[in-house]
Amino acid sequence: MSTVAPPSDLAIARAARLDPIETVAGVAGIPLERLEPYGRHVAKVHLAAEQDLAGLPRARYVVVTAITPTPLGEGKTTTAVGLAQGLSQLGHRATLALRQPSMGPTFGVKGGAAGAGFSQVLPMETLNLHLTGDFHAVTAAHNLLAAMLDSHLHHGNELDVDVRSISWRRVLDVNDRALRGIVEGLGARIDGVPRQSGFDITAASEVMAVLALSTSLADLRERLGRIVVGFTAGGRPVTAEDLRAAGAMAVILKDALMPNLLQTTENTPVLVHTGPFGNIATGNSSVVADRIGIHTGDFLLTEAGFGSDMGAERFVNLKCRVSGLAPDAAVLVATVRSLKAHSGRFSVAAGRPLPAEMLDEDPDAVRAGIANLRRHIEIVRGFGIPPVVAVNAFPTDHDSELAVIAQAAEQEGARVAVSTHVLDGGKGATDLAAVVARACDDAHALRPTYDLDAPLRRKIEAVATDVYGAEGVDFSDVATRDLARFEVLGYGAFPVVIAKTHLSISSDPTLRGDPRGWRMPVREVRVAAGAGYVYAISGEMRTMPGLPRHPAAASIDLDPDGNVVGLF
Amino acid sequence: MSTVAPPSDLAIARAARLDPIETVAGVAGIPLERLEPYGRHVAKVHLAAEQDLAGLPRARYVVVTAITPTPLGEGKTTTAVGLAQGLSQLGHRATLALRQPSMGPTFGVKGGAAGAGFSQVLPMETLNLHLTGDFHAVTAAHNLLAAMLDSHLHHGNELDVDVRSISWRRVLDVNDRALRGIVEGLGARIDGVPRQSGFDITAASEVMAVLALSTSLADLRERLGRIVVGFTAGGRPVTAEDLRAAGAMAVILKDALMPNLLQTTENTPVLVHTGPFGNIATGNSSVVADRIGIHTGDFLLTEAGFGSDMGAERFVNLKCRVSGLAPDAAVLVATVRSLKAHSGRFSVAAGRPLPAEMLDEDPDAVRAGIANLRRHIEIVRGFGIPPVVAVNAFPTDHDSELAVIAQAAEQEGARVAVSTHVLDGGKGATDLAAVVARACDDAHALRPTYDLDAPLRRKIEAVATDVYGAEGVDFSDVATRDLARFEVLGYGAFPVVIAKTHLSISSDPTLRGDPRGWRMPVREVRVAAGAGYVYAISGEMRTMPGLPRHPAAASIDLDPDGNVVGLF
Repeated sequence: MSTVAPPSDLAIARAARLDPIETVAGVAGIPLERLEPYGRHVAKVHLAAEQDLAGLPRARYVVVTAITPTPLGEGKTTTAVGLAQGLSQLGHRATLALRQPSMGPTFGVKGGAAGAGFSQVLPMETLNLHLTGDFHAVTAAHNLLAAMLDSHLHHGNELDVDVRSISWRRVLDVNDRALRGIVEGLGARIDGVPRQSGFDITAASEVMAVLALSTSLADLRERLGRIVVGFTAGGRPVTAEDLRAAGAMAVILKDALMPNLLQTTENTPVLVHTGPFGNIATGNSSVVADRIGIHTGDFLLTEAGFGSDMGAERFVNLKCRVSGLAPDAAVLVATVRSLKAHSGRFSVAAGRPLPAEMLDEDPDAVRAGIANLRRHIEIVRGFGIPPVVAVNAFPTDHDSELAVIAQAAEQEGARVAVSTHVLDGGKGATDLAAVVARACDDAHALRPTYDLDAPLRRKIEAVATDVYGAEGVDFSDVATRDLARFEVLGYGAFPVVIAKTHLSISSDPTLRGDPRGWRMPVREVRVAAGAGYVYAISGEMRTMPGLPRHPAAASIDLDPDGNVVGLF
Repeated sequence: MSTVAPPSDLAIARAARLDPIETVAGVAGIPLERLEPYGRHVAKVHLAAEQDLAGLPRARYVVVTAITPTPLGEGKTTTAVGLAQGLSQLGHRATLALRQPSMGPTFGVKGGAAGAGFSQVLPMETLNLHLTGDFHAVTAAHNLLAAMLDSHLHHGNELDVDVRSISWRRVLDVNDRALRGIVEGLGARIDGVPRQSGFDITAASEVMAVLALSTSLADLRERLGRIVVGFTAGGRPVTAEDLRAAGAMAVILKDALMPNLLQTTENTPVLVHTGPFGNIATGNSSVVADRIGIHTGDFLLTEAGFGSDMGAERFVNLKCRVSGLAPDAAVLVATVRSLKAHSGRFSVAAGRPLPAEMLDEDPDAVRAGIANLRRHIEIVRGFGIPPVVAVNAFPTDHDSELAVIAQAAEQEGARVAVSTHVLDGGKGATDLAAVVARACDDAHALRPTYDLDAPLRRKIEAVATDVYGAEGVDFSDVATRDLARFEVLGYGAFPVVIAKTHLSISSDPTLRGDPRGWRMPVREVRVAAGAGYVYAISGEMRTMPGLPRHPAAASIDLDPDGNVVGLF
C-alpha cells in the first residue's frame, strides 16, 4: 500500500476525465433515446428503459451495507464505488445504485458526500447541490399538500379535519433548527387558521419515501393519493386524495421519478436516485433505479443506509418486497479504525482530529470492537444473504489488525477482502470484487424477518428480537391502541419500520458492540400510508438537523474563476 | 379575422413541432459549446456567450409593457411572443426575453402562463413547473441565509443582532397563507430562539432581484454579500457577508445565473430568466439574458411586468442603469375589452365569465376607458422611448372600437397596430412587427425619471409626480427617519422602487383611468442593499398569496398515459 500523501479528493475530481453521459449510458446498454440530458455529464433515464432492457440477462444483485456507524465513518459509499470500479477492472459490467445526498447537511457539519480519493461519483458538485432538482420537487409537492390542507381549514374545513390530529408538517432541504416547532396562521382572519406545526428536512418527507418505493408513474400517483395527513373528528383518515392534492403532486414529481445517471472516477455507470431518511424512513435508493439497473450488466450494486440493522433490514423487508428483486450477496463495510472506536477505548468525535494513539498498532483494540462486526454478519446471514466483509483500508492499518478482522469473518463463515480503492481506485478493489463475485454463487434464499400477514405488533417484535437482539418490546398504551386502530383502518398488512438510533444495534445509542439483555421501548406508532409502512418510534428521532456554530457553509465559496471551493 | 372556434392552447402546444434546442441556439447565433442542455428542448446558456457575441451588431431593443392591468388581462406575454414571431415572418431575426413564471400560483388561481393560442412559449409544462430549477435555487439560497441567521442567534449572537430588527424572512414557491405569519424556534432550548417571522413567495425574495440584476458571477457574489438581514442594537446593518453565508449562497445560485433558452410555437428563440415580484421588486427579467440577447439578432424584445408605471418605470430607472442598454421602442399592449373594463361600466372578475353585454359593439365604453391608455403613452414618451400601441385583437372586437384606440394613439403621437397573433401566430402580427420596426427609427434618447445623486426623498417624489401623476408624497415619520438613516448608511445613491398596487396608476387600487388630484402616502421604507435599491411601501403589499377555495391544483393531474392535464 502506498504511503505517499495522495492528492486531495478535489484534485482527483477535477483531474478525472468524464465521459459524455451518452457514453456512460452506452456502457450500461441504456438506449440513447431514453436519456434526458441535464448538462453534459448527467442525464435522467426514462422509466421506459425498464421495458427496453427487460429481455436482457439479470445482473448479480449486491447490497452494500456496513457495521454500526461511528463518528469515523466506514466509507460505505466509497467502498461501493470502489467495488463497482473493481468489478469493471476484472472485465465485468457493473452498475452502482446510490441515494442522492441531501443538500442541506452539505452546508452543516459534513460537507459534500461523493465517495473519496480515486473512488468518487462525479460530477461531485452537481451531485451535492441540486443534481436534477428531485429533492426540490419533493419539497414542492410536500408543501403544496400542506398548503392545500391549511387552505381547506381556512375555507371552512368541509372534511371535518381534527386540527389536533394533523401529522403533515412542511419540509425544506436545509439544516434549520428554528423551524422544528412553529405556530403558523398568525395575523388577521385572512391569514389562515393558527395552529402548531413545524418543518422537517426534505429527506424525511413521506413523499421522498413514496418516490423511492414507486414502481411506475401510475403507482406514484396512487401512493400519493393514499398519504394520510390527519384524521377527522370521527377518526377517519384524511388523505391527499380527499384534499384533491395528489394529482398536482404527481405532476410536480413526474420528472423526479426518473433516475439520474452519473459516473464514477473510472466512468462506471451510477444511478443516483431519491434519498429517504435512514432513521424514520427506508434509507434506500429507489426501486425504479434498481429495476432498470438490474438489466444493465453483470452486477448491480445498491447501497443501503447505516448498518445492516437499519438500511439492509428495510432493504429486505420493504424494498425487495416492492421491487420483486432479491440480492445475491451483501457487502459489509468495516474499517480498522471504526472497530477500534467500537472498543470504547478511544474518545472520537466527528470533525475532530483522531487521537494519535488510535493509529498505533493495536490488534487488541480491534478485537475489543469486533463483536459489532460479528453481529452484523449474523444479521446478514439471518436474511439468507451471503455476507462479504469489505475492509476499507487506510495506510495506517497494520497487518496484525487486519488479521483480527479476517479471522473473525472466517469464524462467522463470511468471505472477506481488504480494499485500497481510495488510494488505488478500481485496481485496489479487484480482490474484493473477485470475492464478491464468488459470494454470489454461494447458496442463498432471501428470508424476510416476518410475514406480512402477521399482526403489526408481532412484526415489530420480530425485527426487535431477530434482527436487533432485543429480549422483547415494551409498547406504550398509546402505541398499543394506535396499532389496533391501524389494523381496523386497513393498514395491518403493511411492513414496519423501526425509527431508532443508527449508532447502536439496540435502540439505545450508548450501547456499543452487540448489545444484549435489553428491551425495546415503542413510544408511538405512525402510518405512512402512501409509502406503505407503519413506523414505530423508539427513542428521540431528529427530523430537522441544526447548523453547528461553525457550519461548512461559512467556508464554501466561489473563487475568482467561478470554481466552487470548500465543498469537500 | 377568423371566427371559427380555434383549437385549445393545449392542443396547439401538443401539436407544435419543437426544434432541438441546439437549432434554436443556432438561429440566435449562440455557440453550441455555450449550451447546457436540460432535456431536448431547454438549455442553459453559459454567461461566456456574452463575450462570444459581443462583436456582433447590436439588436434593436424593444420593451413590451401594457396599460394598467384589469382582471381580463391584456395578453402582454402573448403579444410579446406574437411580435417576436411576426418579426421573424418579416425576415428579421428576433429573440424574446421573458420572466420565468412562479410555480406556486400555477396551482392557485391562475393555472399556467405561457402565452396563448398560436403565440406560446414551449415546452409549456417545463416552463410552468420547475424549468431548470432556478426558483428552487433562489429558495434554497434565501433559506440558507435565514438558517444561518437563526443559528447565529442560537449560538450566542456574537454580532449583537437586534432580534426585533430582523427583516429577512423565509421563502417558498407556493401559495400558502398560513405561512405569512409564524412564530419559530419553539420547543426546547436546542430548538433555537423563539421569534416572530414568516414566509414570502420565492418571487418576492431579494435573492431573486439580485439574480435578475447581477451582471456576472462575481457581481452576484458581491451583491449577495451586501444583503442586509437586520441591524445591530447600535443600528449597524448586519449583512449576509457578516454571517459568512454569501459564498455558499453564490455556490447554490451559480447555475441559476445562466439564462434558459426555450422557443415559441414558431421556434423563435426565447430567453426565460428570473422572476422578481412586480410589486415590491423590479418585475423585469434578468440583465444577463438581455446582455446576451442584445447580440443574437435584429431585435431583442424584453417584457416588463404590469403597466408602464410599474415594470417599465423600473426597467428605465433600475434595469437599464445596470445593464447599460437603452431601448429603441416600447410596445404598449391593450385590448378592447380591458379598455371597456377601465370605463368602470362593467363588473368583471378574474375566473368569472364576462358580462355578455361587454361583447356588444360599444365604442363609447372604449372611449370611457381610453384615458388609461393615453396616460401610459405619456409615461412611455416621458421616458424618451417611442411608444407603439399594440391592440391584442379578439374575434369579438368591433371596427368602431378599434378605431377609438387608433384615434387616441394618433392624437398622442403614438404608432398603433392591431395584432391577431393568438389566432394566427406570427402571420397575424406582421402589421405590428412592421410598425415596431419603424418606431425604432424614431428619434429617441432614454430619460430616467431622476438622477441617482438626488436625495432618496426627491427620487420617490419624482416617480410619484412625474410618472404616476400624484400631486405630492406624504411620508410617515418613520419613513422620513429611515430615509435619512439610509443616506447616512451609504444607501443614498440607490434608485428607488415604489411598492404600490398595479391595479391603478395611482397608489389607490380603486382609482381607474388617469387618476389626478391625489397624494401618495409612504408608510415605510426598506433597503434591498444586495439588489441595490430602496423601496417605499405605499399601500398593502401581499408577498405571500393564498389558495382559493377551489384551487387550480385540484384539477391538475396525470392522465393514464402520464400526460399532464389541467395545467392550462
